[in-house]
Amino acid sequence: MTRADDLRKIATRLRIHSLRMTTRAGSGHPTTCLSMADLMACLFFGEMRYKVSDPEDWGNDEFVLSKGHAAPILWAAYAEAGIIPEEELTDLRKISSRLEGHPTPRMSWVKAATGSLGQGLSVGVGIALAQKLGHSPGRTFVMMGDGECAEGAVWEAAAAAVNFGLENLVAVVDVNRLGQSEPTMHGHHLGPYARKFKAFGWAVHRVNGHDVPAILEVLKNIRKSGGPAVVLAKTIKGKGVSFIEDKNGWHGKPLKEEELERALQEVGPLPAIDSRRLVRSPQKALRPAWKSSFAFERTAYADKTATRLAYGIGLEKLGRVNEWVVALDGDVKNSTYAEKFFASFPERSFQSYIAEQNMVGMGLGMAAKGFIPFIATFAAFLTRAHDQIRMAAYSFANIKLCGSHVGVSIGEDGPSQMGLEDMAIFRPIPGCVVLYPSDAFSTEACVEAAARHKGISYIRTTRPATALLYSRKEKFPVGGSKVLRRHDGDAATVIAAGITVLEALKAHDELQKENIGLRIIDAYSVQPLDIETIVRETAQTGGRVIVVEDHFPGGGLGEAVAAGLAGRARIIHLCVRDLPRSGKPQELLEAYGISASHIVRAVQDLIRP
Amino acid sequence: MTRADDLRKIATRLRIHSLRMTTRAGSGHPTTCLSMADLMACLFFGEMRYKVSDPEDWGNDEFVLSKGHAAPILWAAYAEAGIIPEEELTDLRKISSRLEGHPTPRMSWVKAATGSLGQGLSVGVGIALAQKLGHSPGRTFVMMGDGECAEGAVWEAAAAAVNFGLENLVAVVDVNRLGQSEPTMHGHHLGPYARKFKAFGWAVHRVNGHDVPAILEVLKNIRKSGGPAVVLAKTIKGKGVSFIEDKNGWHGKPLKEEELERALQEVGPLPAIDSRRLVRSPQKALRPAWKSSFAFERTAYADKTATRLAYGIGLEKLGRVNEWVVALDGDVKNSTYAEKFFASFPERSFQSYIAEQNMVGMGLGMAAKGFIPFIATFAAFLTRAHDQIRMAAYSFANIKLCGSHVGVSIGEDGPSQMGLEDMAIFRPIPGCVVLYPSDAFSTEACVEAAARHKGISYIRTTRPATALLYSRKEKFPVGGSKVLRRHDGDAATVIAAGITVLEALKAHDELQKENIGLRIIDAYSVQPLDIETIVRETAQTGGRVIVVEDHFPGGGLGEAVAAGLAGRARIIHLCVRDLPRSGKPQELLEAYGISASHIVRAVQDLIRP
Repeated sequence: MTRADDLRKIATRLRIHSLRMTTRAGSGHPTTCLSMADLMACLFFGEMRYKVSDPEDWGNDEFVLSKGHAAPILWAAYAEAGIIPEEELTDLRKISSRLEGHPTPRMSWVKAATGSLGQGLSVGVGIALAQKLGHSPGRTFVMMGDGECAEGAVWEAAAAAVNFGLENLVAVVDVNRLGQSEPTMHGHHLGPYARKFKAFGWAVHRVNGHDVPAILEVLKNIRKSGGPAVVLAKTIKGKGVSFIEDKNGWHGKPLKEEELERALQEVGPLPAIDSRRLVRSPQKALRPAWKSSFAFERTAYADKTATRLAYGIGLEKLGRVNEWVVALDGDVKNSTYAEKFFASFPERSFQSYIAEQNMVGMGLGMAAKGFIPFIATFAAFLTRAHDQIRMAAYSFANIKLCGSHVGVSIGEDGPSQMGLEDMAIFRPIPGCVVLYPSDAFSTEACVEAAARHKGISYIRTTRPATALLYSRKEKFPVGGSKVLRRHDGDAATVIAAGITVLEALKAHDELQKENIGLRIIDAYSVQPLDIETIVRETAQTGGRVIVVEDHFPGGGLGEAVAAGLAGRARIIHLCVRDLPRSGKPQELLEAYGISASHIVRAVQDLIRP
Repeated sequence: MTRADDLRKIATRLRIHSLRMTTRAGSGHPTTCLSMADLMACLFFGEMRYKVSDPEDWGNDEFVLSKGHAAPILWAAYAEAGIIPEEELTDLRKISSRLEGHPTPRMSWVKAATGSLGQGLSVGVGIALAQKLGHSPGRTFVMMGDGECAEGAVWEAAAAAVNFGLENLVAVVDVNRLGQSEPTMHGHHLGPYARKFKAFGWAVHRVNGHDVPAILEVLKNIRKSGGPAVVLAKTIKGKGVSFIEDKNGWHGKPLKEEELERALQEVGPLPAIDSRRLVRSPQKALRPAWKSSFAFERTAYADKTATRLAYGIGLEKLGRVNEWVVALDGDVKNSTYAEKFFASFPERSFQSYIAEQNMVGMGLGMAAKGFIPFIATFAAFLTRAHDQIRMAAYSFANIKLCGSHVGVSIGEDGPSQMGLEDMAIFRPIPGCVVLYPSDAFSTEACVEAAARHKGISYIRTTRPATALLYSRKEKFPVGGSKVLRRHDGDAATVIAAGITVLEALKAHDELQKENIGLRIIDAYSVQPLDIETIVRETAQTGGRVIVVEDHFPGGGLGEAVAAGLAGRARIIHLCVRDLPRSGKPQELLEAYGISASHIVRAVQDLIRP
């Protein structure tokens, strides 16, 4: 028995598992599993090195299934490797099972959720970077589909892999010719894929994806010559089952029971082989014992400071006490002030250039290896990575995002640069923390709080320099708020965050002249919202509430408060209700109805008998 | 005087305007204008053909400034062409001016807002497609920056341009070496750009971007050889002003008054030339006189039907009465049922493959020429195009989007495929219509309503087949709602949409047995929300309200209702509050708290004394 014979047997077992699992589940994508079965056998049992007993072993090679709809064959591979019991495969897609329809880290060997195509290569870039940074001997393998190569994010990642010199990164493209609804753009032609990857600087290898010795040879060559390398594997969708081979209309469709029987007759009986003995162990390696504190000494700000600048200063200080913190930029680090971290810790700073999707995807990969990525760009441009942020949630990823230049208060650059929907991206994500500090002191505190929170944290920062409201000592826990003004008999409560806190304070002073008291709450923790304080304080002001925010109406602070109070107060919601334009910051606050004068008018409306 | 001399003079005028405008505004990006001044002069006064008096002339060449931060030189070019008065240039970035910091269609020659980088080429692809489809002799020119070529969306668009054979598309890349915060990945090397565009199938031309005769020669060659063609122009950022030429740290920074004076001394006095006489007129062409109705005959559904299927059927029928309707797909047309339109109108159907950013960007371009694009994919994957959707709003674009497979009700495919944040994308957009039909009849009506609405409309469809609730004749205006159950003395009102309407009806029947009456509102128009009806009906049920939706808590129907009622009712909000997993649809509705049984329990909670 040659090694190739063994691997062919394993490939057959993977095919049989995939067919059975999907028929039993009544849904799933068997044909796309069949096209890559030989590749999977070669990777998991001929090339990759990993410790079956420990998904976190620092020497492990890592695997990312970018074509997440092929999950069944991934679960089958883990069963063959002895990582999960073979019987568990029957649980595919059950509500109680970790073997979901598309991979998520509910199964501990999965480092990032996939299933939104074209994201896996970025995750792989991040993991490979983390391996290099952490001196792991491990390599990263990303299994991609041909259809997903149409996604721009793939090419962002391809450029980054070369830019970072990731010789430990290998991509395999399963070129099975058929997409979901029709053939792919390039069909079975490997040439266009080869030209593209080559143009982006990759080493390109072509292979018949069903020729086991050839696949092994290619992988061996890459082991010697290094990466980033891509294996373009020509394959047949549905390979091994004649009546579904290379046929359109069989994407995401399990076989019926009787079809399964016919298929299994063709594929043959389950070959007898203990796949586990073919698994290659990793080299010994230990996770680095780096500093990992969160508490850093706060800056003694003395004058007006932009919260974006305080973000940069805080991040740099965090970097000093925590060596797992890394920073990622999309060529705006002189605006977000991530440049302070870049200057102090160049080896932990990663330039993604103007490619926000890959920036977030890389962060996801680095977080999967234990790093704490701080990812910053203009808040408006985080919309570009919304899908990656969404998938970060399903990856239970510990990533930190910062969006600068929020709202109309940025001024003359105009609407394309204004983050007016960013809270609506992050607030819907279960468990996501959204912090929106209003001064430099609270910003630094938010940087620490974001880092401490295990999960996704988002910090929203403001462009112009703004007044100091707090002190170095003040605490800003996640879920808290600050009552900034309180008098007996206050007429109403203003709930604000960020720049509108300052407008609220102006309105307070204005109304003082008329002997109207105003309660002011700085709701810096937009999510979770300090609803207990809000309920208590607003009840004391007769249930008269004004929420004012530099954000569009939907999904922001106003709706968070409305949902939280849910009937317990009368609310006027001041926010940006029109498509804004260029202008001076204060002009725009005024024009779009979120300045002090509008707050004053809203209070007058609320107290009018 | 040669033509080249004239164009050099115009380039100098463009430089002087750009410098003056930005200094006067106190912000903006003069150096990036200077690098492209010679290119702009050659394009606007040596190559492009357009009718100065009519931005909508059907024979016009179109221009997209993908590097939107170079807006000043675009405004300057329009002034030189006689499209706007030169004096107006002094209004740059004023709140009252159409000459914004980044281009928007507030200036009528701008076809799509730019300023979020890497989007212009997709828009250009859409415009060029529209020109071909509408038999316009015009061509489309896209001016790009080198930095933005890092965006994956550029490569999605590059692939699409070749796939659609757009010989009328020309891209110019201003390779000025410097990004915002540091040099670009490839600096002044044209090789990597050339290799990439070539690999994607483009004709590549290189030129010194300050050599006017050479630029003219390249453009002339392209005129003969056709596109898609890209001109890689090596340029100097800040060209013409020695102390800012090719220097890092001068992005987005206007000259101070004294610097401006020095600069103007170097650039020389404003050359005397009437640029207007160099503008080339377009060929004569008329906008097609195609059918453009909206009313189509409704289908007589008789049995359970998925709303996504009804979307496909309705869209196909709309296509019969309106020849401006086009459909765009991201290789999921057999799931969204856009395939029905594709089958009937292949010449108006555009496959974007798995490249959602480019799909939306193309749609934006087609809409700019008067087409009505219906763009459909899984709702989850619209997150991928969130930035393009955002920019569509600033483009005042008339585009229609449909997101299928919303919520946990899709079942076993798991969270990566579930649209749970899509309403939070569309609701924040001022003026955006969000429709969420609950049965096949209302879905067809929503297709018509979406088409009629001038602006962005979003339709949310459900995967499983669901019961029929309405009839062919029923009307579903934007901003409406349907009261489906009403009794005297109802205990509470349930506000639902889509699949949860059916759960609410089940809860209604369940509670009937206990003699508890339930009012049911189908809030199919999530935005604008029919708040008048909601206020009236909920007041009649003692202000007891349950909102139930298959969506995350933030930014969806629940928060819309909470914001709308703002204190006038007690609300229980049932929605998906955890990260969901694979499972059967009904199991998931149950597990994540949005099924009939949860509604029943919520009612009981509300009426408990």
